[in-house]
Amino acid sequence: MNIVLLSGGSGKRLWPLSNDVRSKQFIKIFRTADGGHESMVQRVYRQIKAVDPDATVTIATSKTQVSAIHNQLGESVGISVEPCRRDTFPAIVLATAYLVDVQGVDPEQPVVVCPVDPYVQDDYFAALKALGEQAALGQANLVLMGIEPTYPSEKYGYIIPKSDAPVSEVETFKEKPDAETAKGYIARGALWNGGVFAYKLGYVLDRARELLDYTSYQDLFDRYDTLPKISFDYAVVEKEPKIQVMRFAGQWKDLGTWNTLTEAMGEQVVGEGILNDTCRNVHIVNELNVPVLAMGLQDVVISASPEGILVSDKEQSSYIKPFVDKIDQQIMFAEKSWGSFRVLDVEKESLTIKVTLNPGHSMNYHSHQRRDEVWVVISGTGRTVVDDVEREVHPGDVITMAAGSRHTVLAQSELQLIEVQLGRDISVHDKQKFPME
Amino acid sequence: MNIVLLSGGSGKRLWPLSNDVRSKQFIKIFRTADGGHESMVQRVYRQIKAVDPDATVTIATSKTQVSAIHNQLGESVGISVEPCRRDTFPAIVLATAYLVDVQGVDPEQPVVVCPVDPYVQDDYFAALKALGEQAALGQANLVLMGIEPTYPSEKYGYIIPKSDAPVSEVETFKEKPDAETAKGYIARGALWNGGVFAYKLGYVLDRARELLDYTSYQDLFDRYDTLPKISFDYAVVEKEPKIQVMRFAGQWKDLGTWNTLTEAMGEQVVGEGILNDTCRNVHIVNELNVPVLAMGLQDVVISASPEGILVSDKEQSSYIKPFVDKIDQQIMFAEKSWGSFRVLDVEKESLTIKVTLNPGHSMNYHSHQRRDEVWVVISGTGRTVVDDVEREVHPGDVITMAAGSRHTVLAQSELQLIEVQLGRDISVHDKQKFPME
Repeated sequence: MNIVLLSGGSGKRLWPLSNDVRSKQFIKIFRTADGGHESMVQRVYRQIKAVDPDATVTIATSKTQVSAIHNQLGESVGISVEPCRRDTFPAIVLATAYLVDVQGVDPEQPVVVCPVDPYVQDDYFAALKALGEQAALGQANLVLMGIEPTYPSEKYGYIIPKSDAPVSEVETFKEKPDAETAKGYIARGALWNGGVFAYKLGYVLDRARELLDYTSYQDLFDRYDTLPKISFDYAVVEKEPKIQVMRFAGQWKDLGTWNTLTEAMGEQVVGEGILNDTCRNVHIVNELNVPVLAMGLQDVVISASPEGILVSDKEQSSYIKPFVDKIDQQIMFAEKSWGSFRVLDVEKESLTIKVTLNPGHSMNYHSHQRRDEVWVVISGTGRTVVDDVEREVHPGDVITMAAGSRHTVLAQSELQLIEVQLGRDISVHDKQKFPME
Repeated sequence: MNIVLLSGGSGKRLWPLSNDVRSKQFIKIFRTADGGHESMVQRVYRQIKAVDPDATVTIATSKTQVSAIHNQLGESVGISVEPCRRDTFPAIVLATAYLVDVQGVDPEQPVVVCPVDPYVQDDYFAALKALGEQAALGQANLVLMGIEPTYPSEKYGYIIPKSDAPVSEVETFKEKPDAETAKGYIARGALWNGGVFAYKLGYVLDRARELLDYTSYQDLFDRYDTLPKISFDYAVVEKEPKIQVMRFAGQWKDLGTWNTLTEAMGEQVVGEGILNDTCRNVHIVNELNVPVLAMGLQDVVISASPEGILVSDKEQSSYIKPFVDKIDQQIMFAEKSWGSFRVLDVEKESLTIKVTLNPGHSMNYHSHQRRDEVWVVISGTGRTVVDDVEREVHPGDVITMAAGSRHTVLAQSELQLIEVQLGRDISVHDKQKFPME
């Protein structure tokens, strides 16, 4: 089975754990059998491999997520890297071309495309396999998964099938309706459109030749930022007459809000937290290294991270976005291609951060015009370069960099350092990059 | 008017703002007219001075609070420093002797003793003045304030007066009762005992001569750690036949729990916080520099500090103590005689803290056996001494101290530095102090 998992961008609905630079699918929130925790990405990947150990999994994502994906899934997973964000049609074409041109998969083979973050059981992956097999039959150019609705949701688009057979032709598609309209759709046998579909690889490459002048993966990659921002639904699905839908009646949850996410958690508390015995249906997700104590609460989610603290009634938590949009908070934590950083202290003329570099990784060689910096290595070993002078560094070593001096650090083992920035106008924009000599 | 304010020790009922080293009376939580915030100590001191600008205020406390008191009230307030904790009788004797022997107040003058943390209005301080004037009459050796009960509280002791006159002799005292018993006391005209009383200074010095071999303030101070741990109630109040009670019917609140404290707050949010419009009777007290977002909550208090996060139903918050006792949390923030520190990062072989020194103050000259340290000055100026070598330091200066080297820093202006501790067995107990040469 070939599977393309679409790993989307940032979002604020799970603030303070997700934000402009952190995506929800990497939050380790699900209890594993060995007592640890796994993320949505890790859970889905493990489930696919359990159903089909030979499945070829390709993750379509932006370059900002590559390091996090390798961290969480290992080096053997395929990644189709979008050089920039261009909506789902270019992204799916790029991943399809990656499978054919880079991985050498036969264009007659089917592929299943689905989001990386549904909360589902093993029967879902068996259904994905069936979806691919249905596409391989060639009765239709596209086979969609239609999820049997459990309530008249306003959050999903609907697929109206021609019949109630397990596999049916599609009569029409409907946009997200209001609840009353949704009830009418369901009475007509409508199914939720979960954005899951299968096709033969060559089919989408044909569409790409028509719409994007596709010639090869490399050509597409090189001019990716010039491709039109159009959705796969608009470019392909809505225009395709030979289209089928296959029913799926198993558990399928979209964990996009704290309310739905906490329903799927296997435990009340992740991180340091205490609930007293008068708490009912309370969840704590705490990324800070100090305890959360909850007393006498009902139906509440508490989440704490370096970005902030949310305390919300679970129902209300789905209305979080406008409030988070108003918070003009400096990014306090971010995962970067080379590791991560966390802001420890903010003063008027200084900023103190903790930097963690992954083994073998380094920052860009760069300088700042308006601030001095001091590094204190607290763990690991590596090499620093300051104005072209290289040295080996170990815990306790101090590196001082005056404004204007070029500098970088390369981690041999995982390397952590405390960086103190000093100056009157500290800004992330005060940065010049240089090639290494 | 002479007033002694008893400033008690640490407590956990207002965790995470109060803990083993931080007392609730110094938390700046009450909105002031100019839009700032004041603490319980500052509020009470301001109120006394408003009622009687010439009042002589002496604060009886331990040496750990001296710096915080001077910080909050200025240098002119009198402080009777207890060398160690010895219960209320030795503490009140020491403060009384301080007034007579150090301040030179006539022993025939009255003094009013009261806790530093009641939440009261100006009429309370007028009542304190009347209490002192009643003691000056000499009709009784002790005059207690009896607070008219507003409900049958189980939290207070009761005073049963002989009559319902404004000033009456005391018939008897009752320990904290259960609610049913309290109702019976109140039916008999009982009053709450708020621990407020007045006496002529010489009266308590006479008791001290009998019970503590009192000769002078200095002698008492020098052998303070050998004095018996007995309460003023036990040693004096319960044995005194010539004792009166004076009624007080104004507002009087003991802000010992989050429930009572938030009732007295003039605003919903102190610190960074957002309440959505479905929150009812929710208070946020946030000392962290990231926002708290509260949605859809009722009757809840949220408090965040470097020590942890409390989210509690207000009624339930009075049962906090056993839960906080179980939290084995490193002290993350503390006010010291020389300033304050805050833990920023904890790793297996390093600890990063932010140190703030008050102008003119310095740490002890000290060394550590098992850790190296690095200081990066981030604001202010001062002088460091490392192994007897002195230097002037400014923002951006880095001082490295190998294990075993003696070091200190003296702040000229307020001085802040980031201290990185490095070693395998970092412990607060690994510290040797030295005299400066």
